[in-house]
Amino acid sequence: MQQGLAAWHHYMVCNDINLLPDLIADEAVFHSPVVHRPQTGKAKVFAYLSAANKVLGNETFHYVRELVDGPEALLEFVTEVDGIMINGVDLIRFDHDGRIVDFKVMVRPLKAINKLWQLMAQQLEHQA
Amino acid sequence: MQQGLAAWHHYMVCNDINLLPDLIADEAVFHSPVVHRPQTGKAKVFAYLSAANKVLGNETFHYVRELVDGPEALLEFVTEVDGIMINGVDLIRFDHDGRIVDFKVMVRPLKAINKLWQLMAQQLEHQA
Repeated sequence: MQQGLAAWHHYMVCNDINLLPDLIADEAVFHSPVVHRPQTGKAKVFAYLSAANKVLGNETFHYVRELVDGPEALLEFVTEVDGIMINGVDLIRFDHDGRIVDFKVMVRPLKAINKLWQLMAQQLEHQA
Repeated sequence: MQQGLAAWHHYMVCNDINLLPDLIADEAVFHSPVVHRPQTGKAKVFAYLSAANKVLGNETFHYVRELVDGPEALLEFVTEVDGIMINGVDLIRFDHDGRIVDFKVMVRPLKAINKLWQLMAQQLEHQA
């Protein structure tokens, strides 16, 4: 768990997408802030996390709170995109090998989720 | 902290709004899932939490995950309102006396935040 969380922070600091695949378990699940239906499997989780990284991961992105309890972590972040403040949480569950098995994102306020929806759709279309 | 969290769960189980004021510190701050601007002071925090209780607190409401770390807790919930599944988090910080000093809510997916926005506005207008 601590190892998985440290690897996640290392990935975020380096901002190196090549580090991402090794962090994700094969059977991982991603829960989007926008859509109800979970995205299952390493390939889909990678697609969503790398799209999120492109959309949110600019120089204003920073984590402001961290809760760790057992195999789970809550990382709260703040970032600004196109002049809109986005406040969100990454809710991550790790397996025994420190790989991500479940990744859920929620954001606030309403203006931020609307912005994110628009940008994520563009990004995922671009990837497809 | 444990005392504050236990008191919160007791309030939620009893669903008794009269228990709520004692849980909130005078200088508490509420962060809405919809609006960016924080709401400061016990009276405002009470207004938002009691409105949220009326809007979300039906028989389908239940907590599905809890992370506790130091003076902070993350409670993830699921509820259904007017046929719409709402998945959210209560991110709570307690003071040394176990009172709530900071309460932040985020919800997903987009459909849920739109529903919540509409219902909270009605509820807060009704209270005013």
